[in-house]
Amino acid sequence: MFEQEYYEVRKKMLEKALDRYLTPKNVYPNELHEAMRYSIFSEGKRLRPFLMFAAFEMLKGKKSVKSLKNIVPAACAIEMVHTASLIHDDLPSIDNSDERRGKKSCHVKFGVPTALLAGDALLTKAFEVLTDVLPKFKAIECITAFTNSVSTRGMIAGQTVDITSTNKRINVNILKYIHLKKTGALLQLAMDIACIMSNADENVRATLGNFALNVGLAYQIIDDILDEIGGFEDLGKEPGQDLKNKKATYPGLIGLEKSKKEAEKLLNSAFKMIKGFPNNDVLLEFVQTIKDRLP
Amino acid sequence: MFEQEYYEVRKKMLEKALDRYLTPKNVYPNELHEAMRYSIFSEGKRLRPFLMFAAFEMLKGKKSVKSLKNIVPAACAIEMVHTASLIHDDLPSIDNSDERRGKKSCHVKFGVPTALLAGDALLTKAFEVLTDVLPKFKAIECITAFTNSVSTRGMIAGQTVDITSTNKRINVNILKYIHLKKTGALLQLAMDIACIMSNADENVRATLGNFALNVGLAYQIIDDILDEIGGFEDLGKEPGQDLKNKKATYPGLIGLEKSKKEAEKLLNSAFKMIKGFPNNDVLLEFVQTIKDRLP
Repeated sequence: MFEQEYYEVRKKMLEKALDRYLTPKNVYPNELHEAMRYSIFSEGKRLRPFLMFAAFEMLKGKKSVKSLKNIVPAACAIEMVHTASLIHDDLPSIDNSDERRGKKSCHVKFGVPTALLAGDALLTKAFEVLTDVLPKFKAIECITAFTNSVSTRGMIAGQTVDITSTNKRINVNILKYIHLKKTGALLQLAMDIACIMSNADENVRATLGNFALNVGLAYQIIDDILDEIGGFEDLGKEPGQDLKNKKATYPGLIGLEKSKKEAEKLLNSAFKMIKGFPNNDVLLEFVQTIKDRLP
Repeated sequence: MFEQEYYEVRKKMLEKALDRYLTPKNVYPNELHEAMRYSIFSEGKRLRPFLMFAAFEMLKGKKSVKSLKNIVPAACAIEMVHTASLIHDDLPSIDNSDERRGKKSCHVKFGVPTALLAGDALLTKAFEVLTDVLPKFKAIECITAFTNSVSTRGMIAGQTVDITSTNKRINVNILKYIHLKKTGALLQLAMDIACIMSNADENVRATLGNFALNVGLAYQIIDDILDEIGGFEDLGKEPGQDLKNKKATYPGLIGLEKSKKEAEKLLNSAFKMIKGFPNNDVLLEFVQTIKDRLP
């Protein structure tokens, strides 16, 4: 998706930090550390940390791996929160997914109780890691941003509405809420952290926040579309899952053509939001990659 | 357990703050807020917040409800973490408990998925509330203390070893680890926060931490004993659960008499640890109440 070397260098740095933060698996109790590491190191795309880096480097005005040092704890924390949510989402009582990224999901590998606790532990770990952010008053700002995006106003709210809406007739506004909260909230958080750590002003933070929400919603609409008409290749997973799981989708609720138009509109508006920033090339490329998935 | 008015005034203040921190249940998504409030306001003894208050007032040298103002956010947060752990512990995949404090457990009332997410949300909320601690550098110290006590070195570690030990032959050291982490860690946290917020020195913090671990372990040993030989009245719940759930107990592993002696020794040593503090009457009374449960 991104220029290979640019991406690889940042990915390596992130994963080195994640490795350092996560207690080695041969520390008691073994199962817990092993389950946390298994899910964190499972070939994720590291999308949220990467967007955080890209926005931070855009705002700082230069691409420099070294400049990312102060933001790395927050990048690790966002990946931990995201992974915790995937572990809990996959549990039999929620999505009952046996696989994740081509591997057994955490509870299939370690059992439901350990997976549940590994999710709790990763969520807690995220806040531990955030206390490493320097200077300390920035750490508090970051923690506040995290709790806003994860809490009953954010990702967890989206997950709740998602599960309580399955098998029910919902309207497109509720589906939009689910996508914006379940996916958008953490993308917006990535922007929030980049803004906090680069001392961006409130206007910039609001603009980039909206940019992230637009992109997150568009991404999910396109996922809905590909689930209906795409192949395994396009979607990166087996299509037809939404129908099978009786989940509402954009094409199901407003039709295929209108869904495509909505996704396009959101992405065009996302382009416009960051057009004025110097050094916006990585974020622009990111939006383009998502647009390219549109069939 | 404690002098009625002293206790009631503090309880009321705590619950008023909890009520303020928890979004009203008629905010979207309803189920999530309702489940969080249901479990928080379910006649808990508020033991951890109360110990935090008692230690803080002991260290400050006077009983004053007003002086507790700065420590209230942390007291709410510890109750949220504790409640989150109870919700997850009660889930069918872990302890499968249908009741909690004489009411339906959270997942029986709201369904497993909502209960799971309500636990996640309360855990996250705890960190949100901790950012309210003033001054801000104390907030960071409190968050660090929380992550230490909750994480893979604390409560969650204890829960993990507990579930992975069920149905297995374990030795008394592992059972001790479970009790110290699952119960002791949050009691120790209550002392840590009292010390942080009253600027106590490292020696005091270590002493009170050990005091809490002793008390927590003794409490659990006595619980094990009462589960074997006590009635409903003594235990506050149906006895015989450990045997039924194939959980190891102190009397099962080292015998009844040795278990009693161990609990007594721990409590006597706890008495000694706080003997030298002025204004230690509330904490002393607390230890005595636990000792009085010994058959």
